[in-house]
Amino acid sequence: MALIVVGSMAFDAIETPFGKSNKIVGGAATYIAWSASNFTRPVKQISVVGGDFPQDELDMLAARGVQMEGVQIKKDKKSFFWSGRYHMDMNTRDTLETQLNVLGEFEPVVPESYQGADILMLGNLSPAVQMSVIEQLGKRPKLTVLDTMNFWMETALPDLEKVLKHVDVLLVNDSEARQLSAQYSLVRAAKEIMKMGPKYLVIKKGEHGALLFHADHVFFAPALPLEDVFDPTGAGDTFAGGFAGYLDSTKDFSFEGMKSAIIVGSAIASFCVEKFGTTRLKELKRQEIDERIQQFVELVNFDISLVNK
Amino acid sequence: MALIVVGSMAFDAIETPFGKSNKIVGGAATYIAWSASNFTRPVKQISVVGGDFPQDELDMLAARGVQMEGVQIKKDKKSFFWSGRYHMDMNTRDTLETQLNVLGEFEPVVPESYQGADILMLGNLSPAVQMSVIEQLGKRPKLTVLDTMNFWMETALPDLEKVLKHVDVLLVNDSEARQLSAQYSLVRAAKEIMKMGPKYLVIKKGEHGALLFHADHVFFAPALPLEDVFDPTGAGDTFAGGFAGYLDSTKDFSFEGMKSAIIVGSAIASFCVEKFGTTRLKELKRQEIDERIQQFVELVNFDISLVNK
Repeated sequence: MALIVVGSMAFDAIETPFGKSNKIVGGAATYIAWSASNFTRPVKQISVVGGDFPQDELDMLAARGVQMEGVQIKKDKKSFFWSGRYHMDMNTRDTLETQLNVLGEFEPVVPESYQGADILMLGNLSPAVQMSVIEQLGKRPKLTVLDTMNFWMETALPDLEKVLKHVDVLLVNDSEARQLSAQYSLVRAAKEIMKMGPKYLVIKKGEHGALLFHADHVFFAPALPLEDVFDPTGAGDTFAGGFAGYLDSTKDFSFEGMKSAIIVGSAIASFCVEKFGTTRLKELKRQEIDERIQQFVELVNFDISLVNK
Repeated sequence: MALIVVGSMAFDAIETPFGKSNKIVGGAATYIAWSASNFTRPVKQISVVGGDFPQDELDMLAARGVQMEGVQIKKDKKSFFWSGRYHMDMNTRDTLETQLNVLGEFEPVVPESYQGADILMLGNLSPAVQMSVIEQLGKRPKLTVLDTMNFWMETALPDLEKVLKHVDVLLVNDSEARQLSAQYSLVRAAKEIMKMGPKYLVIKKGEHGALLFHADHVFFAPALPLEDVFDPTGAGDTFAGGFAGYLDSTKDFSFEGMKSAIIVGSAIASFCVEKFGTTRLKELKRQEIDERIQQFVELVNFDISLVNK
């Protein structure tokens, strides 16, 4: 079993109503790798960083079974940088600054040793870069999962539509689902999006949980009600990593199997927001994850016989 | 067994992005009675209407086991009237016009035949009117449920705080919970509100479901993802009616019992929004409700053994 992860490894600077971070390590593939490696190893990482990216951050991931052969290090260039400010509701944010740096000219190369992986997890990146990885794979993975965002819908929709034809599971948030489908109702949006390629659609609603659509079926996973959300950055990527990593460990790609993976992804994402950046993910123990999964079970569990009587 | 319902019976005029109603019958106690009478009878109604309120609307409710002894009819006056316009998200609305009419001088009188009811369901009304009903009851009901809104928090907070001390279950929406508690986090808000009197707190989040808090426990009931929400007016009251009516039929006022009641309330509220006003509730069959409850079960049901392995 193996999972290929594609995405940015980068720096973020974050402001929330509760605090402000310095320039810290972030990026979709960073969060995905930290999250997925709780459930499956090796994780076969594909990314690009500049010479400014801390070697010890790469070493920490390598020590967790994240293979770095596919991570290009551009010694004389700078890593991708994003800075943003969250609003009080923590579901919306303003981008303050974006420096593409090495990401602007990223040409991913899939190492030969990565071929044959069961799952391809395409983190949020330009659809052309995502497509390039798909085309370099000798055979289609058993499951291709793609995360994207409104920016690509606005600037690269034809590319995005092309890559969606190769995708089994699409992860987007509610406003992105509405934008991509031009439908306000999420049920209608899901129907439209599943015509574009993905057989499964996960709509992430932040503090309001996540919906999984497949054909005429729908499953709802709540978010854990939290006393404090400290920093939502990376929560979606952490969800994606938990989702894909867990599926790689079970190989159950049925609707039932995906339900479990969404609960697991939601559970681990609920840790991510407790501290700035990847801090909480780095200190996380497997037992904590299992206890939180149990909290999710209790959160939605009710006695069906009481309702049906 | 019996349920006392207190609230407005009124006229509404509604605009949504999908249509516009004429002046139609509405009011919290109207929706609550239509909803609750699916599960328990008699419903002992307390309200006030003007001479303009259609007799056949009262007759239809009476035919369903809704007792009208506590409904005052002010022949030469007009019923309460509200008109509003919903935004695209259907979770927010603007009030266009409010005519208090008979509601402005409402002095509820609890008929002797209503004494001894197990549940008191106080629909959204002035806290002083809600308190008057509580004070007229010979003994405290086994369960007192109260719905209120931000308007009373802004204009009658001391009265609201007084009545909350007599309440077992409070129903509010998320923004109201934040306003009442001065806490943004709903978990923190719930802790503050439960110090004010209610042992149980239901936070309604519209299309995002509902949370039930009790001591350190929390339960989440999703809303059914719908293709179309036609008119949200009365959905919260319909939820309250289903919740209280179902509890009156089971007499299980435990946390587990309340979970079931919330699922039932959510299920019946999901019908209310399908048509303008009470239209959908009037034609609703018990079998449809049972089928929808089953949809809720399927919506959140997952195989715990798959996650725990």
